Amino acid sequence: MNTFGNIFKITLYGESHGKEIGIVIDGCPAGIPLSENDLLPDIERRKTGGYASSSRTENDTPEIRSGIYRGHTTGAPIMIAFRNENFRDEDYQFDGFFRPGHADYAAYRKYNGYNNPLGGGQFSGRMTLPLVAAGCIAKKIIPSIEFSAHIQPECMANVDKAIATGDSAGGIVECIIRNLEAGIGEPFFNSLESLISHAIFSIPGVKAIEFGNGIASASMLGSEYNDCIVSSDGQTATNNCGGINGGISNGNEIVFRTYFHPTPSISKEQKTFNFNTMQVENIEIHGRHDACYALRSPVIVEALAAIVIADLILISKIAK
Amino acid sequence: MNTFGNIFKITLYGESHGKEIGIVIDGCPAGIPLSENDLLPDIERRKTGGYASSSRTENDTPEIRSGIYRGHTTGAPIMIAFRNENFRDEDYQFDGFFRPGHADYAAYRKYNGYNNPLGGGQFSGRMTLPLVAAGCIAKKIIPSIEFSAHIQPECMANVDKAIATGDSAGGIVECIIRNLEAGIGEPFFNSLESLISHAIFSIPGVKAIEFGNGIASASMLGSEYNDCIVSSDGQTATNNCGGINGGISNGNEIVFRTYFHPTPSISKEQKTFNFNTMQVENIEIHGRHDACYALRSPVIVEALAAIVIADLILISKIAK
Amino acid sequence: MNTFGNIFKITLYGESHGKEIGIVIDGCPAGIPLSENDLLPDIERRKTGGYASSSRTENDTPEIRSGIYRGHTTGAPIMIAFRNENFRDEDYQFDGFFRPGHADYAAYRKYNGYNNPLGGGQFSGRMTLPLVAAGCIAKKIIPSIEFSAHIQPECMANVDKAIATGDSAGGIVECIIRNLEAGIGEPFFNSLESLISHAIFSIPGVKAIEFGNGIASASMLGSEYNDCIVSSDGQTATNNCGGINGGISNGNEIVFRTYFHPTPSISKEQKTFNFNTMQVENIEIHGRHDACYALRSPVIVEALAAIVIADLILISKIAK
Amino acid sequence: MNTFGNIFKITLYGESHGKEIGIVIDGCPAGIPLSENDLLPDIERRKTGGYASSSRTENDTPEIRSGIYRGHTTGAPIMIAFRNENFRDEDYQFDGFFRPGHADYAAYRKYNGYNNPLGGGQFSGRMTLPLVAAGCIAKKIIPSIEFSAHIQPECMANVDKAIATGDSAGGIVECIIRNLEAGIGEPFFNSLESLISHAIFSIPGVKAIEFGNGIASASMLGSEYNDCIVSSDGQTATNNCGGINGGISNGNEIVFRTYFHPTPSISKEQKTFNFNTMQVENIEIHGRHDACYALRSPVIVEALAAIVIADLILISKIAK
Repeated sequence: MNTFGNIFKITLYGESHGKEIGIVIDGCPAGIPLSENDLLPDIERRKTGGYASSSRTENDTPEIRSGIYRGHTTGAPIMIAFRNENFRDEDYQFDGFFRPGHADYAAYRKYNGYNNPLGGGQFSGRMTLPLVAAGCIAKKIIPSIEFSAHIQPECMANVDKAIATGDSAGGIVECIIRNLEAGIGEPFFNSLESLISHAIFSIPGVKAIEFGNGIASASMLGSEYNDCIVSSDGQTATNNCGGINGGISNGNEIVFRTYFHPTPSISKEQKTFNFNTMQVENIEIHGRHDACYALRSPVIVEALAAIVIADLILISKIAK
Repeated sequence: MNTFGNIFKITLYGESHGKEIGIVIDGCPAGIPLSENDLLPDIERRKTGGYASSSRTENDTPEIRSGIYRGHTTGAPIMIAFRNENFRDEDYQFDGFFRPGHADYAAYRKYNGYNNPLGGGQFSGRMTLPLVAAGCIAKKIIPSIEFSAHIQPECMANVDKAIATGDSAGGIVECIIRNLEAGIGEPFFNSLESLISHAIFSIPGVKAIEFGNGIASASMLGSEYNDCIVSSDGQTATNNCGGINGGISNGNEIVFRTYFHPTPSISKEQKTFNFNTMQVENIEIHGRHDACYALRSPVIVEALAAIVIADLILISKIAK
Repeated sequence: MNTFGNIFKITLYGESHGKEIGIVIDGCPAGIPLSENDLLPDIERRKTGGYASSSRTENDTPEIRSGIYRGHTTGAPIMIAFRNENFRDEDYQFDGFFRPGHADYAAYRKYNGYNNPLGGGQFSGRMTLPLVAAGCIAKKIIPSIEFSAHIQPECMANVDKAIATGDSAGGIVECIIRNLEAGIGEPFFNSLESLISHAIFSIPGVKAIEFGNGIASASMLGSEYNDCIVSSDGQTATNNCGGINGGISNGNEIVFRTYFHPTPSISKEQKTFNFNTMQVENIEIHGRHDACYALRSPVIVEALAAIVIADLILISKIAK
Repeated sequence: MNTFGNIFKITLYGESHGKEIGIVIDGCPAGIPLSENDLLPDIERRKTGGYASSSRTENDTPEIRSGIYRGHTTGAPIMIAFRNENFRDEDYQFDGFFRPGHADYAAYRKYNGYNNPLGGGQFSGRMTLPLVAAGCIAKKIIPSIEFSAHIQPECMANVDKAIATGDSAGGIVECIIRNLEAGIGEPFFNSLESLISHAIFSIPGVKAIEFGNGIASASMLGSEYNDCIVSSDGQTATNNCGGINGGISNGNEIVFRTYFHPTPSISKEQKTFNFNTMQVENIEIHGRHDACYALRSPVIVEALAAIVIADLILISKIAK
């Protein structure tokens, strides 16, 4: 449940308001140069404090606590932790409301009320911080492959409106993976699309994914959709399939887009059910949150894509 | 790679033009009444021969070869096979072309030319037939849960055009799951969305998936998106989230949409690279294929959703 | 439960008196020459009909039903089946007794009476036949590694006595693996000993395993036990550790011994509880069985060792 | 590799001389009362400092860093860490020798020299400390089941001799599991013996395991070996099979014995190969070590047995 991957395998732990959050990374080959400094640029990209971001500020300092010796990976598990420091250690009292759009109600039902609700507990976006660290290591395993994700600019009008009105906005993150050789992916069930989507949907707030022109393709004719091969290395004239045929990379750019719903926390008044009075009431939610967490997500999307691709590339060595 | 699931686990084998295709289903509880007849209605729904479908006709007769005794499951693996009969056992000669839009080139590169290319081999849509059989068994494990998938009608104009011109069409399949209790899903990595998307992207031709109003949600404000709880059993006024918060069912209908690209095989002339002459040329592809395989896919989408949900419901018993 | 392995992965199905038994082998690299003939010598070694063996004679003809094209593996799952033909299709009536020493009672309790009891069902020694076939394929993946198992001769006096008196005998099988390079094994949990023992204990009748002089080592002093390295390729003067240190091969011969209890079926009168009369009574069990199934087991032990080693060697390529 | 279990799943990290060692425990049901104090009695049983034990003294203070809220498990991963404090942070210089009987040479070959050799790195017996903590949690999940392991006294003469002469001794640990219901175990591959042996062989120093009278059984006749059922709840007159038939518990006591080789570190002079001079030489190894680490192992054996049984009991709920 909290472990993902086949050979390059990650195990996540922690809660938003717990002592620390962290990740154990297994299956990283021995001999790769690695230090905490290698993790800082991507952590910085994810960090809070920018435009439309939460005012919770954490140092986000990674501590590698195992698996490194004399500056290199050892082949043993790499454990990376981040201490939680800047949170309010309130004593939570259920006041009759589950926050609209959050996991609160579903988690309450799943865990019979024993889940840690503070700051979203295990469902907090903060859990993506160790994933970014793991993504850095994945990228180091496959240094020739380039991961490049960015927010689609069209959401920015909504972001401005959201900031002005105490509301929130969604967004779309496009990720392009370059220099991935043809032949990567493990059908039938571990296609590139299956594994990438599995990983991406673990990011809080993701509700849709498309590969290439996946959404538009459903309205196309085959003669419009099919990508014509134009050279002996498999390059195609168009890339409607997003670089993937039959679940396997075809040597072109991998392209996928991730759709984030708006941040569920908003300052605006909302209606929801009060389980104490047993009626729908207006509530206002206070606290620190991003007006659009999709803005911080490109590096997270890259991280999860890199974790999947590193795993698949390690597996592909088996057949060689 | 060809096994999927945690407790309710399926293992797929076979190729389009091999002796047979089949599936081994492990983890099905003992004592469930089961016979081949139980599989026939869903197999019939998937069958070829209808409007816009391939002219390859197979009996599609399921043979349960293990795991049943005196009309009930035994707890041992259930093996179901389908013989391949109506195929042309040609001796394949590579004529310089990989079929546009197909897995041929990517598979050739992955398997160094050793993959079975006949009829698409392991990448054939025929591989979904054993999945439909496994889906029937999954549905029998959780009989109170209703799976209902259908094609969105808007693709039909394209289908008509495709049939008339030797082209093909894509389509969108919407699946609704009713009566799923709140609390199903296993975060962090095995969220409902992660597992359903993982399974659905194994279906040949799928290029996008959205849960609830996932695609539209990226352009919404939080005040528009958040679903307000209106009753003590967690029912919400809207269902933008598709019945899933934080990767866990919230007790409302699960809704997701699967986007299929057009069938890659078309009769129309296409351009592609000739690896013998090393230049782009026009080709025509002959053979039997669906003008729109999305039309046959609703029952396949249901099957994979049922396989995921049965697995998760079995796992949920552990916590009770 | 019925799937084993990480990359080279096997899935077993079938029952003693079902239509067929078989195995799906996933993760075998593409391009390995393979036909049914390659499986015959090891199948012959396992076959019934010899001294102290059951009079049930089956053809044991393997049918490869997927995963081979033009005489080579394709990278897709290899399915191998064996039809059950020579069995008595009786209608089983529980007569109050569970056979002593068999899985009958435990299986009845586990499966609430729904398990298939005919001929031992899924617990039959017949299930080792597909394992032997899978072992042949494993051996082909790693042709330079030699697997050599044999029965320890000391049990033969017991076998003679057992045949003369309608009794049965146990036995010890020693397996030696030669030419395995140093560095194979995946600690912490997937040590060579962990994986080999996991696989070996799936063979019906195994109750103990030792690596090297494992049993004697518990009574040794360290100065007697430690194996002194005597050359730059890691060869040791003694091999008390059976070629494994810290769960990893050290380049010497791997040596382990498997302890089989006597065949539970005997013709001699035995006492056991009658669940109809609710008292202990004398019973006589009729049927066909081996006086000492350990005699047929060396090739089974080799097969499971080869399955484990092939998987680990494939995994070891990742680090290279 | 460093993750074990199906539903109740543990992931281990750390090295003997690293900052800390720890374990992430996934799949523990929500709502179980748990604090660090619950872990102390078993940690104390394992602790160094007693007769024949290493002089390295660590506080062995467990820190639960996630997964607990208001004194109960939350259903999220439980992370437990132990800081390493009392070790000598030497700068390791390879002096030509790999310590005889240790994992040093095999690990060097596996990890191409990148493994952390200090104090045995990941191969240290210290790694069993987090396993004992995880075992405590497993025991809390299944409180009615009793785990009782003890050292067989016959090794004590060797221990005395070892202490007197700077040598070391092996030993045998017998473990008895009481109150385990019939029907636990998941054949074909996840039999009780397969899973217990898999787990037990991860303990450093284990070289053999037997269930019931497994070793002796190989020299028995069936009429001697078979355990006669004597009551309607499946109790047997003898327990040669150690409470397991067909890989499934039969309702009697589970009995197994674990064989530990002598501690490889001894003060006595030993011969081994010097990779600098390329010849066999005498060496003396200094450092702190147990004269017989088997003495500290009963609680470790219990922990791993409890981890396996808790996992299987959780899985057994699925069929109910």
